[in-house]
Amino acid sequence: MASIKDLKKKYREFSMLISAISLMGWDQRTYMPESGADHRSEAFGFVYSDLFRRATSDETGQLLSDLSEPGVYSSLSAVEQSMVDNAMRQYKRFKAIPPGLMHRFAVLSSKCEKIWETARKRDDFSMFKPHFQELLLMVKEMAKHYGYEENPYDALIEGYEPGMTASKLRKIIEPLRDFLVPLVEDLLMRSKSKNQLPSKGHYPRNLQQKLFLKVLDVLGFDFTRGRIDETAHPFTTTIGPGDIRISTKYPENDFTMGFFGTIHECGHAMYEMGFDENLVYTPVHNPASLGIHESQSLMFENHIGRSLPFLTYFYPKIQETFSPRLSEVSLRDFYKAVNTVSRSLIRIDADEVTYNLHIIIRFELENAMVNNMLEVDDLPAAWNEKYKQYLGVEPPNYADGVLQDVHWSSGMVGYFPTYMLGTLYSAQLFAKAKHELNGLEQGLMDGDTGPLVRWLRERVHKPGATHKPEKLIELVTGEKPDPKYFMDYVKHKYSEIYR
Amino acid sequence: MASIKDLKKKYREFSMLISAISLMGWDQRTYMPESGADHRSEAFGFVYSDLFRRATSDETGQLLSDLSEPGVYSSLSAVEQSMVDNAMRQYKRFKAIPPGLMHRFAVLSSKCEKIWETARKRDDFSMFKPHFQELLLMVKEMAKHYGYEENPYDALIEGYEPGMTASKLRKIIEPLRDFLVPLVEDLLMRSKSKNQLPSKGHYPRNLQQKLFLKVLDVLGFDFTRGRIDETAHPFTTTIGPGDIRISTKYPENDFTMGFFGTIHECGHAMYEMGFDENLVYTPVHNPASLGIHESQSLMFENHIGRSLPFLTYFYPKIQETFSPRLSEVSLRDFYKAVNTVSRSLIRIDADEVTYNLHIIIRFELENAMVNNMLEVDDLPAAWNEKYKQYLGVEPPNYADGVLQDVHWSSGMVGYFPTYMLGTLYSAQLFAKAKHELNGLEQGLMDGDTGPLVRWLRERVHKPGATHKPEKLIELVTGEKPDPKYFMDYVKHKYSEIYR
Repeated sequence: MASIKDLKKKYREFSMLISAISLMGWDQRTYMPESGADHRSEAFGFVYSDLFRRATSDETGQLLSDLSEPGVYSSLSAVEQSMVDNAMRQYKRFKAIPPGLMHRFAVLSSKCEKIWETARKRDDFSMFKPHFQELLLMVKEMAKHYGYEENPYDALIEGYEPGMTASKLRKIIEPLRDFLVPLVEDLLMRSKSKNQLPSKGHYPRNLQQKLFLKVLDVLGFDFTRGRIDETAHPFTTTIGPGDIRISTKYPENDFTMGFFGTIHECGHAMYEMGFDENLVYTPVHNPASLGIHESQSLMFENHIGRSLPFLTYFYPKIQETFSPRLSEVSLRDFYKAVNTVSRSLIRIDADEVTYNLHIIIRFELENAMVNNMLEVDDLPAAWNEKYKQYLGVEPPNYADGVLQDVHWSSGMVGYFPTYMLGTLYSAQLFAKAKHELNGLEQGLMDGDTGPLVRWLRERVHKPGATHKPEKLIELVTGEKPDPKYFMDYVKHKYSEIYR
Repeated sequence: MASIKDLKKKYREFSMLISAISLMGWDQRTYMPESGADHRSEAFGFVYSDLFRRATSDETGQLLSDLSEPGVYSSLSAVEQSMVDNAMRQYKRFKAIPPGLMHRFAVLSSKCEKIWETARKRDDFSMFKPHFQELLLMVKEMAKHYGYEENPYDALIEGYEPGMTASKLRKIIEPLRDFLVPLVEDLLMRSKSKNQLPSKGHYPRNLQQKLFLKVLDVLGFDFTRGRIDETAHPFTTTIGPGDIRISTKYPENDFTMGFFGTIHECGHAMYEMGFDENLVYTPVHNPASLGIHESQSLMFENHIGRSLPFLTYFYPKIQETFSPRLSEVSLRDFYKAVNTVSRSLIRIDADEVTYNLHIIIRFELENAMVNNMLEVDDLPAAWNEKYKQYLGVEPPNYADGVLQDVHWSSGMVGYFPTYMLGTLYSAQLFAKAKHELNGLEQGLMDGDTGPLVRWLRERVHKPGATHKPEKLIELVTGEKPDPKYFMDYVKHKYSEIYR
């Protein structure tokens, strides 16, 4: 008789291999000497293949199919059922792709990403094009294997945001786009001059380090269960349940990038640290989705970090750290500087207001490509056209235009919308928290993030992947995901800043 | 038909798992947050078990047995034969111990080591005794399973120093002991006052770091293939062929500990970095033995690092680094201070001359215990007796006496002699290098370690485990291992220092 214990045992084993894989990935990005690279790829690939073999074994399949039998399944608790559901969804996605195709995809996507790097440096789309065309064909083939009802795009986004579809996205995006385009227009009308960050200057690395440790401490980051290191591209990774690591960078001419980046990664880490420990090593001791994950990093970065209440508490500490450099910059000026709206070409440099327009552009283009409504040949023109239309800017080259992101080059189609969903979820969750927690903003002014963090832990973090993202938002806020909270939030915040 | 290719393929796979295991071990000692410990143990154990299962599988056994068939074996090259021999030796040792016993040993030795930690802190031998008695019984049982001709001790040391036996050791130890005991007496007669290190004082961590990087650079440590980190207990570990890592520490009251420790670990790392790259991932891309390994660390630490020629070159850089702290300490005084002979209780604090007496004591005691000539009950008294006899000191407590080392508590019996063999091999190899390389010492005075390093690489490092240690020494020096080189070396060096 198959039992949920067997599934837990299996996932516990998978978790050990995942941990080894995560550690190899972390080390590769932090401390590995350069000559270790080739060996690391091979070791990584070997352990990953071993995990894949176990996860897709007939034994795993049989166990999941036994547990899904109505008689067995109905005897399980709701949480156990979600374990089976999650494991089954993962198993099916793994098995959906024929091994040969999966292998060709791995090889091609890795090659294509390398070519993208060079193509971007050389600002040469034609060099990238044939490889991306080939990769896109493969992605479409994979979508067919995964299966979908309406739109092949649905099969792809499912891998990042379970339950999300292109048509649901469109219902969110249309009002959002129609709201954002005129809002940006309006805000920039009010203040033509771009708010220059007053923080440019020399900010010593060691002082930044001290400051970032301080802000992590205030935010409740548990250093017995995590650490922070320096990498070119900040990230968060989970090595094990008591071992969650973030990274940041310390460019000395501008500490704000690393500062808000650190707070952002802290939000990701708090989520991973917050899964119910009773669920450890099970298929639901995982994020509900990438959108929910991003909602937590953005909650920390934007709703806490870049908020006036929190900066009221923390900005004096920033001034003190870099004293006397910022002594003549008022709180208000700093707040405005780190919340400046501008029409930018580059997604990762974008502010809260324009950010989603970058995402919407990518969604519209990738959805069109997957549905054969747009050829890769025409992609740069379509890209530039949309930037002109939505953001009023036109990329002067490929590097700052269609070649700016790594995602497509590595075969990640359907990933971008999770960034946008993160902004929406975080606003909706924060609105709910504000409603339920008395004096939340006063708390932030006192540097007390405890009530908010505990609320998030209890409501959002603990369940892990027990619920799909849409359901989780509904359970926590009483409503389905709704972009109005985000729209209210940016309208209110930025009308005040640009009053 | 079994082929050497199959063996190479298998070992390549094992190497990937060994790499994951090594990385987990490295991370545990360097950067892992404290709450990651339990998970790490489990993940480590899981991957280790997986490796063990593969290494002891029937398939591996069959392959090795096929390759050992005279018809097949004789068709292999000498290096390939040594691959088979090494793999077979490892396989047989793994298989010799019944899985139940191996498991009980793993559990008990881990427990016993923990108890030793506490017992040492509390200076309580009686607390340690029953567990060590039980562990020793198990070690003797394992020796029976491994098999031996003369002495169960031989079965144990074979795991660390292939080909070595208690009787061979005794032939080395007797003249060595008879030489060392009066030598120490004589040296200390000449200078009653212990040469105080003139270097005590405040040596900032960041300056030590800079200095250690400089010395590693002079010694030829390749930072594209390695790195250095800080740990409580310095060590060297290989993550992969292009990724060999050392660690050190920076106590601010005495930089010499970390300085010579760094040079010591550099020697270990140079060995691992020097294996022939054509042998990569094979059973012989490994150290010949722990004794040979130690000979390389001691070559760097003592024959280079603590030598007058090298310090003639490097001491001015030390003075400069900590300027003006050491400006009044002459080269000669520094040289004497870091080569001071003293009767100490603690092995790891011992100088080059007395060090082997500590090892000889341990060998004599463990050999007696394994042969039922000494009961654990009587161990502390026997320990103190030998310290009095050989070193003229008597431990005032257990912590600085019989409980000072971790080895026995973790079941490592037969390990200590490899430290001594390292001192002998290093002296014999250095004597040969000096003979073959013109101007070796003049080179060291100019900070040019290149000729010696290349000589070591070609003669000692490249072969890896192709030869057993005794054979390797013979191939390189034209003679079997002989303690006379070590005796000549210390006699000459310390007579001059204590003249």
